Order: sequence, then structure tokens, then C-alpha cells
Amino acid sequence: MASNFDHENHGRTEVPDVVVSRLPQYVRTLTQLLSEGVQIANSQQLGEKLQITPAQIRKDLSYFGRFGKQGRGYNVNHLLEELRQILGLTVTWNVAVVGVGRLGRAILSYPGFTPDGFQLVAALDDNPDVVGQDVGGLTVQPVAQLNDVIQRHEVSIAIVAVPIAYTQGVVDRLVECGVKAILNYAPIMPQVPEHVNVRNIDPLLSLQSMTYYLANGTVSE
Amino acid sequence: MASNFDHENHGRTEVPDVVVSRLPQYVRTLTQLLSEGVQIANSQQLGEKLQITPAQIRKDLSYFGRFGKQGRGYNVNHLLEELRQILGLTVTWNVAVVGVGRLGRAILSYPGFTPDGFQLVAALDDNPDVVGQDVGGLTVQPVAQLNDVIQRHEVSIAIVAVPIAYTQGVVDRLVECGVKAILNYAPIMPQVPEHVNVRNIDPLLSLQSMTYYLANGTVSE
Repeated sequence: MASNFDHENHGRTEVPDVVVSRLPQYVRTLTQLLSEGVQIANSQQLGEKLQITPAQIRKDLSYFGRFGKQGRGYNVNHLLEELRQILGLTVTWNVAVVGVGRLGRAILSYPGFTPDGFQLVAALDDNPDVVGQDVGGLTVQPVAQLNDVIQRHEVSIAIVAVPIAYTQGVVDRLVECGVKAILNYAPIMPQVPEHVNVRNIDPLLSLQSMTYYLANGTVSE
Repeated sequence: MASNFDHENHGRTEVPDVVVSRLPQYVRTLTQLLSEGVQIANSQQLGEKLQITPAQIRKDLSYFGRFGKQGRGYNVNHLLEELRQILGLTVTWNVAVVGVGRLGRAILSYPGFTPDGFQLVAALDDNPDVVGQDVGGLTVQPVAQLNDVIQRHEVSIAIVAVPIAYTQGVVDRLVECGVKAILNYAPIMPQVPEHVNVRNIDPLLSLQSMTYYLANGTVSE
């Protein structure tokens, strides 16, 4: 099956991180197309929605096997299911939020994670005034119990929303506890071992990359 | 001068957007090195901090001219100043925030934009209860006056923090008003003409790209 073929494959294939990072946008776009009743889409149509060149889309997908027949376009439902499999979006992932300040509370009350398979199962903070509070249905636990909380709730992913000064320390603790995926909201790039993934949510970096185009009068492709 | 050479150049050169998007991280890392008194850094050292391969760093920088002498490393201060010039970070950019809900308020009260040259000059919302309120030192103005506000405050960049259902509409309005750089917080990819840049802040997409590595037991390079 194409499916099995893919899954045996991409553990070995070296897929560039930039390609992996684009796949969730493919999933979102395909989901939208499906909800609009679109069953077949070619790379041209996907490219317009994703604002990626059709050539890039064909190249990205080629890492994972053959999804479309030349000139026939992609079966939206099939491609969507394959990509959800490839991205590990067919299972539920337990997520812990470390740092329950203004940002942490906004994250804990954001309803968008759960429907997409990310279960917020624990909230931790160092502030004794915050520990014990109920936030978004979770009782805030002390960071001192990080290891225990992560084991007990089988946490795979941590969202870190602590001040810059504490970020690297918390990230180090998380890595020690075996967490391999960290979403960091502090405006720094935490250092982690090679086997750990960090994604940084940083509006400033996004703004600073757009000013390049404003300053140079060019546009991104 | 290398500087002028670069600036004449990269208006013409086609720099991949993925490269442009990395440059702000270079700026941040170089700033940190400089604050630590580091004056010369080679691509190896930069690569470790940025978690990018030294080869990629040399390739990225090569788009903008010669910054380092083979085996001599980069002059941190010189490279930093060049990159700040290239990214348009030596001037101040006026920013409007559209949408003053929970997220918009968090953005308006975030102190990190101003020191880096992004001046929040206007806040707009459609909700009559919110219009007229003082948020982060700005009086919230009605979206109906968007065009006037953008002209009056010479807004170059808009941050959009409105619900999904309103996002594309607001983005269309901003584009009509001549805004060429938009930072969107809604979990959709707004469609814009080619001459406009959009960056999307979307924690869900980041999480969904990390699960690829969790599901496949590989790590991003």
C-alpha cells in the first residue's frame, strides 16, 4: 500500500525541517477544501491557497511517495489522511503548560488545541500564589514536581510561557524529564540536545522578517 | 563600501523567503554575542547558537555579499550592523493592532516591540463597548475609520488579532488601505495580493510540525 510504503520510508528519508514545517498548512488547506466539497485538487489550486509555488508543493510531497497522478491532481481526502498519518495527527498528544502568567492563562483557555489532538493535561508554575489555582480546568502544580507530573500525565509536549530569565532553565528541566518537543513563547532560542525539537513563537522575529520586504520594496515568493 | 554594495544588490537578488525569515534570528544571536563581549565568531559558533549548520549560515549570508574572510570568522559588530540595515531594522516602523480582545490586549501591553523599532501607534476594534477605551496607552478607534487611522499614523504594518470569521475581511481592508505587511494571529492563512506579506502566528501549526518527529522518532536538523 502507498500508505505502508510511506510509513516505512520517512523514518529513514531525510526530510528538510522547512518541508515538515509546511505540512500542517497543507493539512489545514486540504481540510478546508474537503469541507467545501472539493475532492480533487491539483498543485496549482493548492499553491494558490497556500501561496506556495506548485513546483514546491510537488517537491514537498515527493518526499513521502506518490500522491497524485501527472495531470490528474490529488485526491484531497486521501492526501489529507496520508499527511495526518505522516505528521502523527491521528493520535492524541498530552501537553503540559509551564508558566501560568498572562500568556500561560491565554494559552490554557485557548479552545483550539483539543479538537486537533493536543490535550492540555497539566499546568505548572513557580509562584506560590498561583500554585493550586484552577486555570482552564486544571489545578496549577509547582514546577518542583515537574518530573512527577510529566510521568504521571504521559506528557510528550511542553509549552513554555515563562519569562526569558527562566526559559533556558525550564527547558533544561523538561529535557531531563524526557520531553522531546517544546513550544517556547519567550523571545530567545533555548539550546537543546539534538534529539529534542523546539519551536519558538515569536511575533518580533516575524515582524523583523517582513520589514526586509518593506525596506527593499520586494515581496516574498 | 560593502554596505552600499549590499544595499544596491539585494533589491535585485532573489533571496528565498526562508533565508529572510532566518535573518532576524541571526540579528538576535549576534546582539547576544556582542553583549557578551564576543567580537569575532565563525559559522561554527553561530551555527551552535542558532542550531543551523555552518554551511547553511555561510550560504544564507552569501546572498548579501562577503561578510567573513575564509577561516577568520565574522566580525560580530559589522555583521550585526549589516544585517540590521538589510532587514530595515535601523528605522522605526509604525504598527496598528486590529482587534482588541484578550489577545489584542496582550499584544498591546507587550513591552518587547518598541525597543526593537516597532511603534504601536493605533488600536482598532468593531465592538462599540471597546471603542474609546484606553488600552496600553492608546485609545481604541473604530475599524470603520481604518483608512483614516492608517494614513494619519503612517502605519506600515498591521497586527490582526480578530476572530477567524472576520480575519480575511480585515486583511482585505488593510490591503485596500495600502498596508503591505500583516502579522495575523487567527488560525487561517489570509489570501493577499503578491505585493503584500503576511506572517501567521499559529501555535497549532508549530505543534503539528513537531509531532512529525515524535511520531517518526527522527529529529529536525
